[in-house]
Amino acid sequence: MGTPRILSGMRPTGKLHLGHYTGALENWVVQQNLTNPDGTRGCETCFLIADYHNLTTSLDTREIYQNTIEMLIDWLAAGVDPEKSPVFRQSQIKEHTELFLIFSMLITSSRLERNPTLKEQVRDLNMDSLTYGHLGYPVLQAADILLYKGTLVPVGEDQIPHVEITREIARKFNSHYPHPQSGPVFVEPEPKITKFSRLVGLDGKAKMSKSLGNTILLSDGPEDVMKKMRNAVTDTEKIRRNDPGRPEVCTVFSYHSRFSAPDTIASIAKDCRSGALGCVDCKKMCAAAISLELEPILEKRHNFASDPDTVRDILLEGERKAKTIARHTMGEVRAAMNLGEQ
Amino acid sequence: MGTPRILSGMRPTGKLHLGHYTGALENWVVQQNLTNPDGTRGCETCFLIADYHNLTTSLDTREIYQNTIEMLIDWLAAGVDPEKSPVFRQSQIKEHTELFLIFSMLITSSRLERNPTLKEQVRDLNMDSLTYGHLGYPVLQAADILLYKGTLVPVGEDQIPHVEITREIARKFNSHYPHPQSGPVFVEPEPKITKFSRLVGLDGKAKMSKSLGNTILLSDGPEDVMKKMRNAVTDTEKIRRNDPGRPEVCTVFSYHSRFSAPDTIASIAKDCRSGALGCVDCKKMCAAAISLELEPILEKRHNFASDPDTVRDILLEGERKAKTIARHTMGEVRAAMNLGEQ
Repeated sequence: MGTPRILSGMRPTGKLHLGHYTGALENWVVQQNLTNPDGTRGCETCFLIADYHNLTTSLDTREIYQNTIEMLIDWLAAGVDPEKSPVFRQSQIKEHTELFLIFSMLITSSRLERNPTLKEQVRDLNMDSLTYGHLGYPVLQAADILLYKGTLVPVGEDQIPHVEITREIARKFNSHYPHPQSGPVFVEPEPKITKFSRLVGLDGKAKMSKSLGNTILLSDGPEDVMKKMRNAVTDTEKIRRNDPGRPEVCTVFSYHSRFSAPDTIASIAKDCRSGALGCVDCKKMCAAAISLELEPILEKRHNFASDPDTVRDILLEGERKAKTIARHTMGEVRAAMNLGEQ
Repeated sequence: MGTPRILSGMRPTGKLHLGHYTGALENWVVQQNLTNPDGTRGCETCFLIADYHNLTTSLDTREIYQNTIEMLIDWLAAGVDPEKSPVFRQSQIKEHTELFLIFSMLITSSRLERNPTLKEQVRDLNMDSLTYGHLGYPVLQAADILLYKGTLVPVGEDQIPHVEITREIARKFNSHYPHPQSGPVFVEPEPKITKFSRLVGLDGKAKMSKSLGNTILLSDGPEDVMKKMRNAVTDTEKIRRNDPGRPEVCTVFSYHSRFSAPDTIASIAKDCRSGALGCVDCKKMCAAAISLELEPILEKRHNFASDPDTVRDILLEGERKAKTIARHTMGEVRAAMNLGEQ
């Protein structure tokens, strides 16, 4: 089998936070830059701005363009290289919707209703208010992946059922529509179980999330980071500077574990437990460690943000490349289904 | 309000039968040729070859192109004028699928499950085997109609719920996405209740249907029509030539009512009841009346069938026109939703 290809995406919700970075973006850049011993690329990568997926949870599109650009700037600043990884908006590649419609005929609605991730998503919603499009988002996801012949899908354990739906659809398509010349149109992509480091929110909640207002943004300067860090939740039983603390329940320590150097982490844990280190100083060190990691990102971010024409051109060029791949795949789909001009 | 616009379509199932003709095609041609007193057209018409809709009930597409061409030849032979009415395949206009995806976010899946026509369709199916795409076919239908800004939808009483779904989607779109310049993007189409004359099958079953093998095709020559007519079910209590018959239970008489001249119809009814007219003669008259109506259709059909290049060009030209309209509508949709290139 050839070079693996990864199609990953994010919904355009505006500026990204550290949770996006450690949970996905960082990993994207690693995959993008994998190199084989002979110097060829170890992995092909395409990055999707999943604007249609946004509609499954909010119909408000007033800020969608601005949010797209802010997110794209974060991607680029964090190391996404548009020469290596085309970046593009789902809504600009009509073939996503063509394949979505075709795939919609290859899976039952009861199969989609049994999707455990969906059940979780709508737990708070009234199931009656679930839109038809929301029910079908794994079908759109299958179209996203298979349109670019993604062969590997980096997922957490909980998302394996989604990949299974994509695999089922690929299998069903191939069995109903064998390609006249070239064998199966689609390869069933494999899930690539990836241990994403989740970041807790500044308020100690399980996840950083814009709607909870508990995030540090990739675009936050050192002062912003320090200001936000001041409000971070620590061990509630460590009240005075010299009280002994429990790093394992401290939000700030969880950030240290990710952003500080290994020996620093060890000494912070020790000094927190002994009471030698107070939370104020600990937070200063943590903010500094985060800002050190963000420094090159901030600088690149500033350059892109002050040159919107370049960002726009990167997007349009990515979309040009994506269209070429998408049209090629749809050409095969049409040939296999006899839906051509003929 | 301006000239009404009708978007109607059929699934490409191959050669059409008399049931298609009296149930829809004949009406299409009437609408197409309506003229205002000032000589302008009374109605704009677009005719859709709904090949994607085919997939809701059969995934087999091996014959889809040939079936499309055979159906198109029947349309043209029956009087569809491609200069007045663009004819086009759904699968060739990507914008159908774009609008389908967007609309899928504007309606709940429970609303679609309550669709009475769907319930009827799946009565024989196991509801568990209903595909996601089949569940959504009224959404695709809404996209078909609204993409061309159809304002009137000719329907039988039983199809009003479908038009209601299209109206709801149009309303929801307009309220979420008011167009920045030009007001609402979509007009809510009105159902136009049309009394379609249904033809019973040759076997006396309620409907002519290819799968029941009880049809007379638009492409049947006089000999074929006569041959099929011989097997048509008549009043089972009229056994000998001179037995009195009951026209109201006779399949053949139902065809007379549609294809014979009014005074002929009256005299046939009278002579059947009295026993003066035997079934063999009655069938001969009926076959002749049908063939008389089919004669000009057959002749045009022959001309088109022997000139496949012209038929193909008509289709491609229709698709060119349809794409222009579809792109214009999607331009408005994208402007209203901020999904543009910007």
